[in-house]
Amino acid sequence: MKHEKFAKESFVTSAEMVLPNDTNPLHNLMGGRLLHLMDVVAAISAQKHSNRVVVTASVDNVSFKHSPKLGDTITLEAHVTRAFNSSMEVFIRVYTENIPNGTKIETNTAFFTFVAVDQTGRPIIVPKLIPESEEEKKLFDGALQRREFRLVMAGRIKLKDATSLHEFVEDINN
Amino acid sequence: MKHEKFAKESFVTSAEMVLPNDTNPLHNLMGGRLLHLMDVVAAISAQKHSNRVVVTASVDNVSFKHSPKLGDTITLEAHVTRAFNSSMEVFIRVYTENIPNGTKIETNTAFFTFVAVDQTGRPIIVPKLIPESEEEKKLFDGALQRREFRLVMAGRIKLKDATSLHEFVEDINN
Amino acid sequence: MKHEKFAKESFVTSAEMVLPNDTNPLHNLMGGRLLHLMDVVAAISAQKHSNRVVVTASVDNVSFKHSPKLGDTITLEAHVTRAFNSSMEVFIRVYTENIPNGTKIETNTAFFTFVAVDQTGRPIIVPKLIPESEEEKKLFDGALQRREFRLVMAGRIKLKDATSLHEFVEDINN
Amino acid sequence: MKHEKFAKESFVTSAEMVLPNDTNPLHNLMGGRLLHLMDVVAAISAQKHSNRVVVTASVDNVSFKHSPKLGDTITLEAHVTRAFNSSMEVFIRVYTENIPNGTKIETNTAFFTFVAVDQTGRPIIVPKLIPESEEEKKLFDGALQRREFRLVMAGRIKLKDATSLHEFVEDINN
Amino acid sequence: MKHEKFAKESFVTSAEMVLPNDTNPLHNLMGGRLLHLMDVVAAISAQKHSNRVVVTASVDNVSFKHSPKLGDTITLEAHVTRAFNSSMEVFIRVYTENIPNGTKIETNTAFFTFVAVDQTGRPIIVPKLIPESEEEKKLFDGALQRREFRLVMAGRIKLKDATSLHEFVEDINN
Amino acid sequence: MKHEKFAKESFVTSAEMVLPNDTNPLHNLMGGRLLHLMDVVAAISAQKHSNRVVVTASVDNVSFKHSPKLGDTITLEAHVTRAFNSSMEVFIRVYTENIPNGTKIETNTAFFTFVAVDQTGRPIIVPKLIPESEEEKKLFDGALQRREFRLVMAGRIKLKDATSLHEFVEDINN
Repeated sequence: MKHEKFAKESFVTSAEMVLPNDTNPLHNLMGGRLLHLMDVVAAISAQKHSNRVVVTASVDNVSFKHSPKLGDTITLEAHVTRAFNSSMEVFIRVYTENIPNGTKIETNTAFFTFVAVDQTGRPIIVPKLIPESEEEKKLFDGALQRREFRLVMAGRIKLKDATSLHEFVEDINN
Repeated sequence: MKHEKFAKESFVTSAEMVLPNDTNPLHNLMGGRLLHLMDVVAAISAQKHSNRVVVTASVDNVSFKHSPKLGDTITLEAHVTRAFNSSMEVFIRVYTENIPNGTKIETNTAFFTFVAVDQTGRPIIVPKLIPESEEEKKLFDGALQRREFRLVMAGRIKLKDATSLHEFVEDINN
Repeated sequence: MKHEKFAKESFVTSAEMVLPNDTNPLHNLMGGRLLHLMDVVAAISAQKHSNRVVVTASVDNVSFKHSPKLGDTITLEAHVTRAFNSSMEVFIRVYTENIPNGTKIETNTAFFTFVAVDQTGRPIIVPKLIPESEEEKKLFDGALQRREFRLVMAGRIKLKDATSLHEFVEDINN
Repeated sequence: MKHEKFAKESFVTSAEMVLPNDTNPLHNLMGGRLLHLMDVVAAISAQKHSNRVVVTASVDNVSFKHSPKLGDTITLEAHVTRAFNSSMEVFIRVYTENIPNGTKIETNTAFFTFVAVDQTGRPIIVPKLIPESEEEKKLFDGALQRREFRLVMAGRIKLKDATSLHEFVEDINN
Repeated sequence: MKHEKFAKESFVTSAEMVLPNDTNPLHNLMGGRLLHLMDVVAAISAQKHSNRVVVTASVDNVSFKHSPKLGDTITLEAHVTRAFNSSMEVFIRVYTENIPNGTKIETNTAFFTFVAVDQTGRPIIVPKLIPESEEEKKLFDGALQRREFRLVMAGRIKLKDATSLHEFVEDINN
Repeated sequence: MKHEKFAKESFVTSAEMVLPNDTNPLHNLMGGRLLHLMDVVAAISAQKHSNRVVVTASVDNVSFKHSPKLGDTITLEAHVTRAFNSSMEVFIRVYTENIPNGTKIETNTAFFTFVAVDQTGRPIIVPKLIPESEEEKKLFDGALQRREFRLVMAGRIKLKDATSLHEFVEDINN
């Protein structure tokens, strides 16, 4: 196993068309269906970084401002932002196009976290991630704060021990 | 339209069996499939509160500690925690049972937000929610903070204007 | 294993939204899809009574008077009515709501029978069922007659040996 | 529209392979999935008799003695047994084959009833059915009794008015 | 194992209704969905000839002149045209009916090739096929040419070694 | 509408994980399911070239040498090779990876043809395609021959009028 891998090695892109069985009675893509598509693409990305079977550990806030419609094309782009022992944070960006109309907008961004597991389903160490581009570095830097936030939300660490969040808090006070 | 409704009026429960097409190659329920089931049940709950067609607006942090397995029974319970103009926050609790083995554990909790829309898809005002039980009141009180947090994360308000989050911050400093 | 269990211990409820892939070209819920939903909920109920893996043994007359439509919410309620050695009869009641319109009607009732099986797929004894409410007692009492009717229909007993059906016949003659 | 049609004009056959997403955790075809396949084939048969859009009205007793397994081939055969104003009874016979093993058994028979509807969804008259073979005549003759039985079960006629059932009752008393 | 089998022993027919989740945004059956239906029926046919598990080896040119629409009935007919060691060519003919309108047209024909495999997934010899009717004989005769064409296209033999194609070529030159 | 577009403007890539409901009883990806995935990706590519709704017109020879397995990752790459009035030929290349094992092979290539249609479903003219790279030019050059071959196979032109195929034939004779 390599000890370190570049962010770009985990890059995955996928294009899907919104078909009738993906939609709600308003003919919009169902939120739950989009989450499922994100989960699959993000899992492939985490597999590429770790060369392991991976399981979804958590999903961060996802907002749905513009609903893709029946017949639209959805493009999902994912890459790992940072690795922590056996877990990996994956950033997903979703574009929605109505190709005949020539419109394309970014409709969603999300962070999913995955854990690499061995044959028996137990967590296993993954390579460290090396960010290269400006965006990769920014996502890498924010990953620690988001991770502590998740652990606080899940009640696994106390807020006072989430040291990277304190900086965030100081920003508020100033 | 009623001006106010009780939390319990939006209560929905649903039971599902984990079937082969819901699972990943490890025979565990896929994270994305569970998010889809949560989305449907939560949407029914938001419909019951608003008596309107609803669309998913956002999903909060969801963590997946224990993966339901092929053949397990999933029970989802949802109710609206608080209403804000045209949006409603829904709390979902998921239990996973292996009935033959007699095991039942709470595997997930999540908050989904929905917006009520009229026939043309535009947001429309919904009744206020009245919490009754201790748990309903606690969820109602926390909803404002979670809402500001979502708006900050989505870049729609500035952190310094998220007044309900300041209290949360003061807790850290003491 | 317990020797006896209450009807209410097997109670299961499930809520589903009628989505596009559940409908026929008239945008009504397909009969076959509703039967599938009934089968899953009833199987969970039979699992709860027996704490065993169960397989569908038979379906009784089901009528479809009102077709749920795209976007409607279906609520299925199921509980075991009576246990016979390794088989259990489950009663299912289906409500269809158009929540935005505020309509809710009982659209179907049905009886499904399940057999509890062991690891090798062979039938295995289940606890007896104790009815408590008036409705549970009435369903318990009728179960014997329905069971004999099924056995006659399946050619496994002769009509003259179906003693509980004779009472039914006498009612006709008077 | 023809006033009369032969039973054989409504004959439909369909072959399906049991795939992973059709099975329960024991790798057997789910009862509900088989009911769905029956419903589709029977609906095509009723369409062929009536040249109309049809909706499922009822399902009679169906028993599942032998469960088809993953990889088995299911053959469904359906034809209309008798027409009554706007409704048609369809008989379905299901064979299950494990082709590599060279086994083929009849696993189920069932009666589904469909109603022919016009563009607005209202019942519309269908041609009478003419049975020809011995089996078609026997099914035709029994259809009246099964129809009255369904109407009694659905509470739409009283048992004493179900005259074709009285003969059935006299058989018991003698 | 039999050494020879008749073409008619592999005959399979299947009827399907075009449901909403089979369609594209124009409410026509998706090409990919039809290919999936063809693949299942053709695989059953190849199983009937070989009494073996089979895997899809290739698909020949398939054209889609008329798109079946939502609510149409698709009838697929398949039989093996010729066997070569462990592979079998299957001919599939697809009819599309709008039963209420009384229209029925042949919409597609296709050739799929399957390989029979043993328990470990390795190719295994199959019976020779004996054509009987004029159409079966014509399909049998053309199968050799189509097979060589496939092998040339897949780069597995050289065009100059595809002797049965030379006759085809001579037709052009005269 | 642009009169000409580059091949690269129609480039689409999609990544999918082989899940249980995509597999046959041998746990391999079903041929028909892969054809469906190819159809969707190729349709998006043809949409990108034409900025129109497109319908599948034909599928050329596709061979399945290596079957992707449950849990494998499938990557599909598609782009338009050439446009003819209202039709476009799309080339699709499929890679199959077992990421944990570090294996990646090209498992399939295929040509699908699509027709661009207007709102009423009638064929409509599309931009010409300009190939740039060596591979794009080679695919562009071969497209005419493949098109004539399809028209001959579909019986829409006579072999003697398929002038681009004659060159192919002369290669055989020399």
